[in-house]
Amino acid sequence: MARKRVYFFGNGKAEGRSAMRNLLGGKGADLAEMTSMGIPVPAGFTITTEVCTEYYENNRKYSKGLKEEVQRSLAKVEKAMGRKYGDPSNPLLVSVRSGARVSMPGMMDTVLNIGLNERTLQGLIKNTGSERFAYDAYRRFVQMYGNVVMGVPDEAFEHLIEEKKRQKGVKLDIELTAEDWKELALKFKEAVKRHTGKDFPDDPEEQLWGAVGAVFESWNVPRAKKYRELNNIPEHWGTAVNVQTMVFGNMGDDCATGVAFTRDPATGEKRFYGEYLPNAQGEDVVAGIRTPQPINKAGKTDPKMQSLEEFMPNIYKELTTIYKKLEKHYTEMQDIEFTIERNKLWMLQTRRGKRTATAAIRIAVEMKKEGLITKEEAILRVPPSHLDQLLHPTFDPNVNKKVIARGLPASPGAATGKVVFSAERAEELAGHGEKVILVRIETSPEDIGGMAAAQGILTQRGGMTSHAAVVARGMGKCCVAGCGDLNIDYAQRKFQVDTQIVVKEGDYVSLDGSTGEVMLGEVKTVEPTLSGDFGTLMRWADQTRRLKVRTNADTPHDAKVARGFGAEGIGLCRTEHMFFEADRIMPMREMILADDTPGRERALAKLLPMQKGDFIGIFREMAGLPVTIRFLDPPLHEFLPHSAAQIEELARDMNVSPDKLRERVESLREFNPMLGHRGCRLGITYPEIYRMQTRAIIEAACELAKRKVKVLPEIMLPLVGDVAEFRFLKKDVIEVARDVMKEQGVRVKFTVGTMIEVPRGAITADKIAEEAEFFSFGTNDLTQMAYGFSRDDSGPFLKDYMSKNIFDRDPFQTLDQTGVGELIKIAVEKGRSSRKDLKLGICGEHGGDPDSVEFCHRVGLNYVSCSPFRVPIARLAAAQGALKEKPEAKGSRRTVKGGKNVGAHRKKILGKGKK
Amino acid sequence: MARKRVYFFGNGKAEGRSAMRNLLGGKGADLAEMTSMGIPVPAGFTITTEVCTEYYENNRKYSKGLKEEVQRSLAKVEKAMGRKYGDPSNPLLVSVRSGARVSMPGMMDTVLNIGLNERTLQGLIKNTGSERFAYDAYRRFVQMYGNVVMGVPDEAFEHLIEEKKRQKGVKLDIELTAEDWKELALKFKEAVKRHTGKDFPDDPEEQLWGAVGAVFESWNVPRAKKYRELNNIPEHWGTAVNVQTMVFGNMGDDCATGVAFTRDPATGEKRFYGEYLPNAQGEDVVAGIRTPQPINKAGKTDPKMQSLEEFMPNIYKELTTIYKKLEKHYTEMQDIEFTIERNKLWMLQTRRGKRTATAAIRIAVEMKKEGLITKEEAILRVPPSHLDQLLHPTFDPNVNKKVIARGLPASPGAATGKVVFSAERAEELAGHGEKVILVRIETSPEDIGGMAAAQGILTQRGGMTSHAAVVARGMGKCCVAGCGDLNIDYAQRKFQVDTQIVVKEGDYVSLDGSTGEVMLGEVKTVEPTLSGDFGTLMRWADQTRRLKVRTNADTPHDAKVARGFGAEGIGLCRTEHMFFEADRIMPMREMILADDTPGRERALAKLLPMQKGDFIGIFREMAGLPVTIRFLDPPLHEFLPHSAAQIEELARDMNVSPDKLRERVESLREFNPMLGHRGCRLGITYPEIYRMQTRAIIEAACELAKRKVKVLPEIMLPLVGDVAEFRFLKKDVIEVARDVMKEQGVRVKFTVGTMIEVPRGAITADKIAEEAEFFSFGTNDLTQMAYGFSRDDSGPFLKDYMSKNIFDRDPFQTLDQTGVGELIKIAVEKGRSSRKDLKLGICGEHGGDPDSVEFCHRVGLNYVSCSPFRVPIARLAAAQGALKEKPEAKGSRRTVKGGKNVGAHRKKILGKGKK
Repeated sequence: MARKRVYFFGNGKAEGRSAMRNLLGGKGADLAEMTSMGIPVPAGFTITTEVCTEYYENNRKYSKGLKEEVQRSLAKVEKAMGRKYGDPSNPLLVSVRSGARVSMPGMMDTVLNIGLNERTLQGLIKNTGSERFAYDAYRRFVQMYGNVVMGVPDEAFEHLIEEKKRQKGVKLDIELTAEDWKELALKFKEAVKRHTGKDFPDDPEEQLWGAVGAVFESWNVPRAKKYRELNNIPEHWGTAVNVQTMVFGNMGDDCATGVAFTRDPATGEKRFYGEYLPNAQGEDVVAGIRTPQPINKAGKTDPKMQSLEEFMPNIYKELTTIYKKLEKHYTEMQDIEFTIERNKLWMLQTRRGKRTATAAIRIAVEMKKEGLITKEEAILRVPPSHLDQLLHPTFDPNVNKKVIARGLPASPGAATGKVVFSAERAEELAGHGEKVILVRIETSPEDIGGMAAAQGILTQRGGMTSHAAVVARGMGKCCVAGCGDLNIDYAQRKFQVDTQIVVKEGDYVSLDGSTGEVMLGEVKTVEPTLSGDFGTLMRWADQTRRLKVRTNADTPHDAKVARGFGAEGIGLCRTEHMFFEADRIMPMREMILADDTPGRERALAKLLPMQKGDFIGIFREMAGLPVTIRFLDPPLHEFLPHSAAQIEELARDMNVSPDKLRERVESLREFNPMLGHRGCRLGITYPEIYRMQTRAIIEAACELAKRKVKVLPEIMLPLVGDVAEFRFLKKDVIEVARDVMKEQGVRVKFTVGTMIEVPRGAITADKIAEEAEFFSFGTNDLTQMAYGFSRDDSGPFLKDYMSKNIFDRDPFQTLDQTGVGELIKIAVEKGRSSRKDLKLGICGEHGGDPDSVEFCHRVGLNYVSCSPFRVPIARLAAAQGALKEKPEAKGSRRTVKGGKNVGAHRKKILGKGKK
Repeated sequence: MARKRVYFFGNGKAEGRSAMRNLLGGKGADLAEMTSMGIPVPAGFTITTEVCTEYYENNRKYSKGLKEEVQRSLAKVEKAMGRKYGDPSNPLLVSVRSGARVSMPGMMDTVLNIGLNERTLQGLIKNTGSERFAYDAYRRFVQMYGNVVMGVPDEAFEHLIEEKKRQKGVKLDIELTAEDWKELALKFKEAVKRHTGKDFPDDPEEQLWGAVGAVFESWNVPRAKKYRELNNIPEHWGTAVNVQTMVFGNMGDDCATGVAFTRDPATGEKRFYGEYLPNAQGEDVVAGIRTPQPINKAGKTDPKMQSLEEFMPNIYKELTTIYKKLEKHYTEMQDIEFTIERNKLWMLQTRRGKRTATAAIRIAVEMKKEGLITKEEAILRVPPSHLDQLLHPTFDPNVNKKVIARGLPASPGAATGKVVFSAERAEELAGHGEKVILVRIETSPEDIGGMAAAQGILTQRGGMTSHAAVVARGMGKCCVAGCGDLNIDYAQRKFQVDTQIVVKEGDYVSLDGSTGEVMLGEVKTVEPTLSGDFGTLMRWADQTRRLKVRTNADTPHDAKVARGFGAEGIGLCRTEHMFFEADRIMPMREMILADDTPGRERALAKLLPMQKGDFIGIFREMAGLPVTIRFLDPPLHEFLPHSAAQIEELARDMNVSPDKLRERVESLREFNPMLGHRGCRLGITYPEIYRMQTRAIIEAACELAKRKVKVLPEIMLPLVGDVAEFRFLKKDVIEVARDVMKEQGVRVKFTVGTMIEVPRGAITADKIAEEAEFFSFGTNDLTQMAYGFSRDDSGPFLKDYMSKNIFDRDPFQTLDQTGVGELIKIAVEKGRSSRKDLKLGICGEHGGDPDSVEFCHRVGLNYVSCSPFRVPIARLAAAQGALKEKPEAKGSRRTVKGGKNVGAHRKKILGKGKK
């Protein structure tokens, strides 16, 4: 069964349509659709993405019969346009362009004016009446084809043009004559021969196939691979190739070319918005000599400008009709390209217009109000990840960024400031009103003050769950972590990137915590604003979703912020961060150094009122909502210093012998702390710790209950892998809680559950659920242990995995549904098999990742929990998950992954990507 | 439905039987059985193990109705014996003894002579006619009851006896008169009152229940818990209580008591073997004043001895008839206890006799030949773990050991020698013919020479898979690893245990690599010998099993040893150990320090001929058998030094800058190396490493193939968690292999498979099996990652887990069938679902653990692989697994876990455990 591989469009008829974008690519599908809609589109055909895949599978050979199919489609194009490809008297010229399922602007190759040679050139001269235009077109073709298809560096051609100008004493291209271009075209062909040893092909068929091959090849050039990696585009999608009749916007003053958006892509305002250039082809603009003009009077910022509306009122009217038709047809804001050739308007492209988050929300909400789309569609129109932009400062998209390194996007937002290398220095300079970026190899509890004082934090080591990352997210502060490219020298107060770049204390750097980029210099940031449309959309999302959204919060402040963002409880309150604070860490260390249980109990007694105070604060902020509190989790050595000097100092402070302290630090040292004495294992060795924590929680709850505050504590035992661990610890919790309630004379409800974060916990979930009242999936650890790699150490090889196409995505950012997800499914199934009303949630980093949230919805969890600033993202993602579940969900296909280039649209207009 | 809780036996009738040992305990079940067989057993009854479990579940209260049931059974006993409990004229006296499902000698409490008080004493005097005997019996009762039930220290009583002797100027107990014992009995009762504030109970009923309670309580005393922990006896089994009529071997010269085995427990020889004492009760022997006499003439080692055969020929004849009847009935060698009271023989116990491994094999083989048991039963009779004794030197069981510390039993065997703290010193002293034990905090590749020179290796840190453990097992050398009790001071050349014990260089210590014990001083070792019976049993096992047994071997020497033990191929050949050798490590380091691929390839080219040589040697030893070779697995930093001095030195040797070296060491440092850049991740980052290894394997295979040696290489990619990793690496393997075969002009067969050792590998096994031709379960890592704890770090908390009854067993020693086993089952099922003929094996440490081997059989693996010295164990375990699978398998219930006390039988005879 031979599959159809080539799809024709032209003259109001098309074999493809918009829904076939997987097969035809976005561009090809929409050219077909526009053609069918009766919109003027130059005729052409699309070679499918499957051909690309086959091409790579078959050692870069085309499938049998392809040439014949192309031949047949080309004949239809010739008929539609009334010209013949390679005909010396009336030649058809074509462009060859890539077109993947999703736009990859400027990533792949394009060749224009194909079909020109010494003979067809004569036909072009005859038909256009302009020798200069024809020779210019010819040299453009040789230059582009020579570069793209034959690999001759563009400088070789530019150099010849420069020489010619020098020789003639002129400065601009337009000052060169037909004769000059003719001469240059010849010289270009000689240059190709010189560089490649091959003659420039004159045969139109050879030209066509050379260009098609170049487009397929460009799917795998490094920049395209990199782009796919960054945007999670699978390799096997492949690209389609669009072969289309050339139309020219540069044949004279009755010509023009332009780009427009059907609504404002920056604000979302409903107005036709765009730019054009008379007598030009897109690539001319790159030279930057001529300034594009606004498309309509409303867009003029200077009365001297001439809009298309004024310059060609009829064409503008036609364009207006078309853009409205397109937006209505697609029920989506469109980004269109057009060319006017001798007063005839041709549409070259329409596609979903990229937009800022603000615009996305406004457009979705307004289109719903206009009746263009349903509420459900509106919800599906906004990529949840885009909301990040609205909640944190962002960089001004119009400013050029000099990226010098890239780390993990550990805590979103944008920050700019002077580099400092110590917490003290950060606090000192911040005290003088300076903005600083704290740069550390890794951070420790001692750095908290400096972190609070800084605009952002940059670390050389550590992952998304490192101290720096976790604390920064809690503070809502921008952080780039684990930036291995840095080479920090504390002594010299500088860091180095490669050998060239040296950044000293006081130099400005900027951090993008959403991308992990580290930039040199000061970059202007834009503060976030939340519109009324945002509130509307969130309300719609809340009405739609089934999944609850909680937050990870360790302090009353975080709890309050999260509740403001719509959190419906706390899914993870880590108690250890409470112990890192300056006044807590001393009794904590006393506990660790105690020789016996009574010694530990004495130290814990000092911590009890502090913990209780924390819980009172958090419970109050979350009154009426559930609060899941995880008992002490990290290995004890995290609370002790490690350098000799710090140990000496602490020994003095604590009045113990340095030897004893050193010995204890040494005895707690572990080869693999991630797999060491942590989590419930601590509770089993030192039951007094969890007993104290139980007491603090229940005392706090009782006190508030007496004051009529509704408290719903959920006590969570971490790292349980065997029901016996849980049973052992639960017994103590129940006992202490009963004692406290008796003492306090009041009863409070509470539940005891566990995190499922070691694979064995998932595998034996049926047994654990016999005892545990809820599960919370700790997907950070579950991912680490399922894959067997630690987040902190996997950076270097995960890079290789991405570049070698072994992984499509970082499993720490988006939940691995195949493996880790399967463990979750097993646990859900087994857990509910022994306890029907088992409450299920997720509290790993994935709780704020839209795809992972949708997964959580699908497998039937009750809630997700994420950092406060990701709560709105999770709410929207949960709603989308619910909508996508329904088979009748409309428009879901059109939801697009959060592209990174939104906001860069201005620069792109008429730019290189649009040649 | 009230369950029966008390089982009577006496007068030829019994309510229980041998098969009810779970309910009645071993002792109770066999007393019932003997009674039913018509063997003279003093009447009594057994309170079931279920009562013990209920007792603990109900807060140490007895179940309702128990007292009545006991009362009814006691009445039957009274009837059977013609005496009445508490009757002043003809009193019945009873003993109360524990009796668990399996014997726990001396671990729990026993009380004798219960029912005595001032009144019943008179009856006893009247019935026996001996005041001295009666008062002695009374004071023994007060002393034992006072100590066991009422908690008075035994010294309090012994002190009074000493005082009495001093006062009378005598030395021996027998020199004390009836009057003396009478007086002492009174003083004992006063002492009880003084110590406890309570009167000594005179009421026989109170006495009985006091003793029963004490036995139940003794189930949970620390020494019993510890014993269970060491012998894997679950806590919930509980103990039964046996209440039995007292008979006395010390009423005069027509009395005696003794113990015997139906065959020689040391050698297995078929001869009646035992000892007795005339006019004595078991406990007298403990005083060590009288030497037991041999039971028969054949046992006499001195003509002055008087055997029972000579002393009481009729009784001996009766005993002979009984022992033969018992052995035939049980078809098993029996350990029997008897008492002769006034020329009447009473049997007090029969049970399966403990024996050495040598004896176990001989008895099994001979009983089969005698037609007593079948071949299948013979196979099931020998606990596989006992074979360890036969393959390694062991300690002389007759010598007292002073155990000062306990570490992990990392490599079996026994070793004794002078302590040294450095490899150099080990080699130096060994060069002078001294036996040394190398003691290190942890070992590294630099220590290899010293390890080879030492008798045994002792480390403070590191687990069963640490460098020391792995290398020692490969060498077949004894090793105790991760002995955290040690405090090693290299500078002072000493180690300390607690504060008291200091061991200096040159002091003797002894190591038991099978138990992990560290002993002070020189302990004599016994060299292993393999009997013909061993060969016979192994042959039977091989005929029976389905599972293949391979070995883990990295050198031709190990391969040869293992093949001698019956290995059917290599299941794991680790290639990294080849790189640690002195001449290899330099090019290895060169490779690690290289800046680019060509640099690494240059260094790898130097390693190629060496690896190839290794493989030629191994393939030759394993000619005709499969050899699974695992590609480089450990993180690269393991090949680099870490201390500043070592780095300086290496930098000099390698002629690189110390800074560069330090930087590389630093950049390779990982937080959690177990979850770091290792396994196939190395191969993905540096494909040239695996390409070199492929070349070495295939070149070696081709060369041997040309010489007509049959080679079956199986190339194994480690740590695969995603099929994409496997696919990426397999492509290279296939390509290089094809190239090599073309160069060599010969074709060799090989397969490419993977280890399943990360949970995700198991979960996605269906996908991986699409590419992989075999799986080998790496259960060390799989256990680590499923539980989320590292073997090297879990020592401290696993101790707590065992002592707090959270774990019954160390999952690193015996496969956790519930969790890790479930992952294996999932992988087997999924793997075979996409590749029917997928070959499945296991190569973790569990491959040599009998229970785990049986599990592997059950889930349908093709083979297990273990260290050379465990191959016979695995062969036997595999056969047992196959037999147990069949529902008709006979005798399987009787197979007993390898008790640790075998060989200590001599000391135990008539000893405290048998009172």
